Amino acid sequence: MSLPHLLVEKAVRAGLLEDLGRAGDITSEAVIEADALANCALVAREAGVLAGLDFARTAFAMIDPAIKFEARIADSARLAPGDTIAKIDGPARGILTAERVALNFLGPLSGIASATRGIADAIAHTEARITCTRKTTPGLRFAQKYAVRCGGGANHRFGLDDAILIKDNHIVIAGGIRAVLRAAKRHAGHLVKIEIEVDTLAQLAEALDEGVDAVLLDNMSLDELRAAVEMIGGRAITEASGRVTPETAPAIAETGVDLISAGWLTHSVRVLDIGLDFRA
Amino acid sequence: MSLPHLLVEKAVRAGLLEDLGRAGDITSEAVIEADALANCALVAREAGVLAGLDFARTAFAMIDPAIKFEARIADSARLAPGDTIAKIDGPARGILTAERVALNFLGPLSGIASATRGIADAIAHTEARITCTRKTTPGLRFAQKYAVRCGGGANHRFGLDDAILIKDNHIVIAGGIRAVLRAAKRHAGHLVKIEIEVDTLAQLAEALDEGVDAVLLDNMSLDELRAAVEMIGGRAITEASGRVTPETAPAIAETGVDLISAGWLTHSVRVLDIGLDFRA
Amino acid sequence: MSLPHLLVEKAVRAGLLEDLGRAGDITSEAVIEADALANCALVAREAGVLAGLDFARTAFAMIDPAIKFEARIADSARLAPGDTIAKIDGPARGILTAERVALNFLGPLSGIASATRGIADAIAHTEARITCTRKTTPGLRFAQKYAVRCGGGANHRFGLDDAILIKDNHIVIAGGIRAVLRAAKRHAGHLVKIEIEVDTLAQLAEALDEGVDAVLLDNMSLDELRAAVEMIGGRAITEASGRVTPETAPAIAETGVDLISAGWLTHSVRVLDIGLDFRA
Amino acid sequence: MSLPHLLVEKAVRAGLLEDLGRAGDITSEAVIEADALANCALVAREAGVLAGLDFARTAFAMIDPAIKFEARIADSARLAPGDTIAKIDGPARGILTAERVALNFLGPLSGIASATRGIADAIAHTEARITCTRKTTPGLRFAQKYAVRCGGGANHRFGLDDAILIKDNHIVIAGGIRAVLRAAKRHAGHLVKIEIEVDTLAQLAEALDEGVDAVLLDNMSLDELRAAVEMIGGRAITEASGRVTPETAPAIAETGVDLISAGWLTHSVRVLDIGLDFRA
Amino acid sequence: MSLPHLLVEKAVRAGLLEDLGRAGDITSEAVIEADALANCALVAREAGVLAGLDFARTAFAMIDPAIKFEARIADSARLAPGDTIAKIDGPARGILTAERVALNFLGPLSGIASATRGIADAIAHTEARITCTRKTTPGLRFAQKYAVRCGGGANHRFGLDDAILIKDNHIVIAGGIRAVLRAAKRHAGHLVKIEIEVDTLAQLAEALDEGVDAVLLDNMSLDELRAAVEMIGGRAITEASGRVTPETAPAIAETGVDLISAGWLTHSVRVLDIGLDFRA
Amino acid sequence: MSLPHLLVEKAVRAGLLEDLGRAGDITSEAVIEADALANCALVAREAGVLAGLDFARTAFAMIDPAIKFEARIADSARLAPGDTIAKIDGPARGILTAERVALNFLGPLSGIASATRGIADAIAHTEARITCTRKTTPGLRFAQKYAVRCGGGANHRFGLDDAILIKDNHIVIAGGIRAVLRAAKRHAGHLVKIEIEVDTLAQLAEALDEGVDAVLLDNMSLDELRAAVEMIGGRAITEASGRVTPETAPAIAETGVDLISAGWLTHSVRVLDIGLDFRA
Repeated sequence: MSLPHLLVEKAVRAGLLEDLGRAGDITSEAVIEADALANCALVAREAGVLAGLDFARTAFAMIDPAIKFEARIADSARLAPGDTIAKIDGPARGILTAERVALNFLGPLSGIASATRGIADAIAHTEARITCTRKTTPGLRFAQKYAVRCGGGANHRFGLDDAILIKDNHIVIAGGIRAVLRAAKRHAGHLVKIEIEVDTLAQLAEALDEGVDAVLLDNMSLDELRAAVEMIGGRAITEASGRVTPETAPAIAETGVDLISAGWLTHSVRVLDIGLDFRA
Repeated sequence: MSLPHLLVEKAVRAGLLEDLGRAGDITSEAVIEADALANCALVAREAGVLAGLDFARTAFAMIDPAIKFEARIADSARLAPGDTIAKIDGPARGILTAERVALNFLGPLSGIASATRGIADAIAHTEARITCTRKTTPGLRFAQKYAVRCGGGANHRFGLDDAILIKDNHIVIAGGIRAVLRAAKRHAGHLVKIEIEVDTLAQLAEALDEGVDAVLLDNMSLDELRAAVEMIGGRAITEASGRVTPETAPAIAETGVDLISAGWLTHSVRVLDIGLDFRA
Repeated sequence: MSLPHLLVEKAVRAGLLEDLGRAGDITSEAVIEADALANCALVAREAGVLAGLDFARTAFAMIDPAIKFEARIADSARLAPGDTIAKIDGPARGILTAERVALNFLGPLSGIASATRGIADAIAHTEARITCTRKTTPGLRFAQKYAVRCGGGANHRFGLDDAILIKDNHIVIAGGIRAVLRAAKRHAGHLVKIEIEVDTLAQLAEALDEGVDAVLLDNMSLDELRAAVEMIGGRAITEASGRVTPETAPAIAETGVDLISAGWLTHSVRVLDIGLDFRA
Repeated sequence: MSLPHLLVEKAVRAGLLEDLGRAGDITSEAVIEADALANCALVAREAGVLAGLDFARTAFAMIDPAIKFEARIADSARLAPGDTIAKIDGPARGILTAERVALNFLGPLSGIASATRGIADAIAHTEARITCTRKTTPGLRFAQKYAVRCGGGANHRFGLDDAILIKDNHIVIAGGIRAVLRAAKRHAGHLVKIEIEVDTLAQLAEALDEGVDAVLLDNMSLDELRAAVEMIGGRAITEASGRVTPETAPAIAETGVDLISAGWLTHSVRVLDIGLDFRA
Repeated sequence: MSLPHLLVEKAVRAGLLEDLGRAGDITSEAVIEADALANCALVAREAGVLAGLDFARTAFAMIDPAIKFEARIADSARLAPGDTIAKIDGPARGILTAERVALNFLGPLSGIASATRGIADAIAHTEARITCTRKTTPGLRFAQKYAVRCGGGANHRFGLDDAILIKDNHIVIAGGIRAVLRAAKRHAGHLVKIEIEVDTLAQLAEALDEGVDAVLLDNMSLDELRAAVEMIGGRAITEASGRVTPETAPAIAETGVDLISAGWLTHSVRVLDIGLDFRA
Repeated sequence: MSLPHLLVEKAVRAGLLEDLGRAGDITSEAVIEADALANCALVAREAGVLAGLDFARTAFAMIDPAIKFEARIADSARLAPGDTIAKIDGPARGILTAERVALNFLGPLSGIASATRGIADAIAHTEARITCTRKTTPGLRFAQKYAVRCGGGANHRFGLDDAILIKDNHIVIAGGIRAVLRAAKRHAGHLVKIEIEVDTLAQLAEALDEGVDAVLLDNMSLDELRAAVEMIGGRAITEASGRVTPETAPAIAETGVDLISAGWLTHSVRVLDIGLDFRA
């Protein structure tokens, strides 16, 4: 699992500049001697899955290259409470200055990975995979999508431009399923897949008749999902969405769908509690 | 409640460019006629508090100035399920293109405002106020802090540079409460306040003895908080933190503290469900 | 055919700032009166296809909103020598200042569209389409890909991240066609297509055996291409590359391939001669 | 021949971010092991002149500092087909990720250098030099002008602000050659040269009478050029433009002009074929 | 005294790109051999206080990392004429290229520090401190405020957002001192201080009655200042402004005010003469 | 006198974002009603020359397009104390928010224009002109050079790249005046002028012998200057530098030099006192 470092650098720089403002860390400068050193550990305070280590490493390095950052655990790994993620040693001022920005990336991204892992584990007895949506935080989509991968999830579209996803409103405005699918095929590049959202089996039948790469089965009951999977018979990739939780996911996955998507993985997830412990 | 439009513009532009990628909205371009029009409504699907309307307005305007955006409800207002927040009319393609970015600002910011409002209402019978922290999403702190204000909360520091907040690690590294407070006062500008985190009443006594603008009472029991408030006797602003929920907040507030702070308001909040309905 | 205006704006602003430097258009300021007006026409000096009108319009508008720009011809349209593309009237200084940047977008993009149209016309009697590559000018890929569409071409990948394209070097390093295809499928999101480059029919057979969305038939003879198309039998999209010119394209297209790709469309194309004529 | 590295860095970073998009090189990540190594050579596939090596070096270094880049040939050098330009060794993933961006700078810039060299060689028996124009790719003017220098050419203006160049339209709008030259001299800083475009010997006489640093003899016949050079008699630098090709250049140069300018050097040049060969 | 290096880097990069323009240092490239070396010293040509050394170090390092920069004196130190501030050795071209930008930061910032030190020394027999305003150079406020600290001054607000400062116009528009102070208190976060400008003792009485953190005594006579300090009696921080010079400052400080503010420290200060000497 | 608005916009946006920080104008938001209006006048409080009006206009417009800005005086005009420069009417909050940034451009730029005018007037009885240097504020060179023009001055180089200026250190390192001038001529483009700094008449003789466009006569006595002008006899432009003040300038100008340059015009100038008056 990897992420272009150029993207990480750009996001961390922006985060640090936001926090430093126009005067920098006036607390640490006022109360910590310039030559004070600290030995710290990045520690998981609860169980979960790690994501975003390069963001944390970069935050400390950008503030002071003299800070040593020694990772003990890699992204995608499961964390137990108390696990040391990394040892961080060096100038105390710099460590204190970078701490919050490092954690503001690491905690939420690990939260996304952990939530994704929760669903992934719950459906591990099936062939289905959990996937995310475009309901992400503006500016951080690349990072949140990466966190989903760290948690064992699959990525959906990264933007408006890398696949065609026809939603209910497109269908209504454009005049029906057949019309939109024909228009989409005329327009799509040869490496662009087409997915369409359907709410009923009747719509699904129409879409299959036209031919499509994937269908988004929105808010269907388990019975409808089973019927849909059967009707499709492998002719398209199947994605179920709506009311996905760790509790409901197994049953949805057992209907035979290929993917289960959940917006809350990226828009409403709880931070994973990770802290920076200073040693005496 | 207002927010500099220049900041909104910059964030929305970045969000749109992220979503448009290198090819733009290939779905809408493929399936929607260039001259198709749509009449839409931004609708609250659940109860809450609105925050971020200017982000949504700007997203639509940046994609197509021909889109009319008529707000019916202002930021900070309470929303009931089904409330129309704004009417949006104009070119269908542009509305569909901007929709997700508009909602990716509006939903999470309204989620923060709503969660803040929940605590604010729960402690409305006291003088205490709910406040946020620096545990925010990198790049969006200005927006999230604004959402806290929309929800009736107060803002804490905006960065490392606008107030001195001495945490436990500062105290340990710098050699005790008296030393850090003296150093802080020597360094602070005349418009910079100083707050210090204390974990025990003994630490509090020491801090009060030196004199300080505000004290952060971290993870104290209700009895300790009451004792702390009494010991302080108005000599410093009091902020309680740790395990704040709508359920625990009233009792904490009733101890007499001035502020209750909660990191989850900004780092772990649930999106408020707001949708864009297209009319036939 | 459309292009997000936000992307156009960003590119034009950068182009103008580059040309203005630190002192602006010192010639026009020195020799043209501030209130002098000019009536101009953007004129095609040779036959071709228009692409990039919004870049030109934006360049004039950014320099002086008082300049009127009235388009007579739309992107994708065929141009005959002498055709008036747009009438441009207003302050002479601003028109002279923006002229070169406007033309530096319009000429090369129309050149790409025209070259693409040349191939598209040459293969119009077949089902094949002409497509571009990632061999584009850094920073202007979105614009050049758009110009290809204006010329009747199809777009290939927009970047490293929107489709999997396995080249010969990937295969060599990763240990063969079967290995790379299996790895690719494990990794690919459900809306990501996979294409593989093959140089021989033996490689093709192996790829088809594993299953793949598209095959890039690199530098094959017409006989090999015909054999390849027959072997594939509709099981994958077919793309031929290598030595594509208006002369060779018809025969390549007649082999039955779906796509013909040519890097030179974007990396080596001749500008289309478009000029700005000033009327007395 | 050198180029400020800060400018190179900025352009390469933008080029890489464009190509990486939001997910990075999904092909290499899927099919190449993280620890796979590769030994490669940047090889000229045809004869020409090298330009842009620092762009290529920077692209590989930005993606992975572990990639070793050992140049064998310097910018401005002549390349024979098969020449190894540089050895590139290190992590295979990073090399594959950076390859296209590196080549998208190197190929077109070397193409410009090679074309310039072609003209420079053709006129080497005269005192004339070949020069470029402002007909460059928006955002890359500094790089393209550098490539012209690598090919033995001279640079014309870098923008609207570093010299006064009075074109035909300026003359028409401003009321004649005497008026524009007087206005230009009043306005120009003491280190700013003034050049004027003339189409006829009558115009030239008028310009010489007023005095000017350089004259652009636009689209004149060889006879006219000879007459112009004689009339000027060393009182101004002479630049000939219009229909310059390797075939026509020698005769133009032999008229005695100081400079021959050609827009196509930067706006319509063919890429130089340079490839990256992977060794087993 | 320190300054976040990320802020320094950003400002220096912008300064260098401004000076390099599109072609770089054409003089040094033309006349200095690429392998020429130089030994230089950054030397104070007059007495003063140093500020901005990291800007200078960064300018040389960004142009050529091979340049060695060895500081002999630190920011905030007093300089005597002839003092060597730093030794700079390495490639001559790079040193010459970076020189002006390095000095354009170092000279003006040291000028601010020196002027501040002048006032600070003049009032050193009192408890008063000299402070700056928001009358700074757009884009360089962080640097100029830092220079004030280097000169022994205190910083006022860094922007519109880090403290409430109610000026005369606010009072007029908002309806009087009581109204504005009550509004300010309702709005201010708990770490935000409130300062109000008063022109008369009557206004002061009103402000003290409402309670406020600090008062700006604008353009008062020495008698009025003394009366004001007495009336305040320690209930608010006192800041005197108006006609502050090294000559007037002692008397103002002796009135007992806490702070003396002067806009000219940052908006009208003379550069400190620092030069770069090349050794044979 | 004009300035590209795109450059103004970029600088003002950066200045406003710096001042707004992360929370905006918390004072005006707290104490001024959202619908309060104000009628203001931008007034000169001392005599001088105006420069930078478009910066001020843009600052108000960017904060609130509802603010009306009606200029009464144009850049380059002389101001008498009390002159109304512009009327500014509209929402009081926005006017108060933009005020400081508007003045932070207008005051210093008018200060530069006024100081330049002072010298220009002092030497108006000669043919000499006053000119600036590259000793400018990083990021604002374009604006400061414009202010010099508004004050009747001429501009020197805008950067390292628009002319060749050979300084004493170049000569020492490169091995003498003849060597550097020959190298410079080989390298310079045909629109690039060459100036050389000389300290003695012997150096001057050598430079004239080689031929050069301009000579910088550094720190020469009036007698030396006279001798230099005579020796040059019109063969090169002459620029005198060193110890230029309104008092010394006339005598320097009377020596017959073409230009007098002074770094302090841009690096050490006093702000011109311009204020914003609010009407009842």
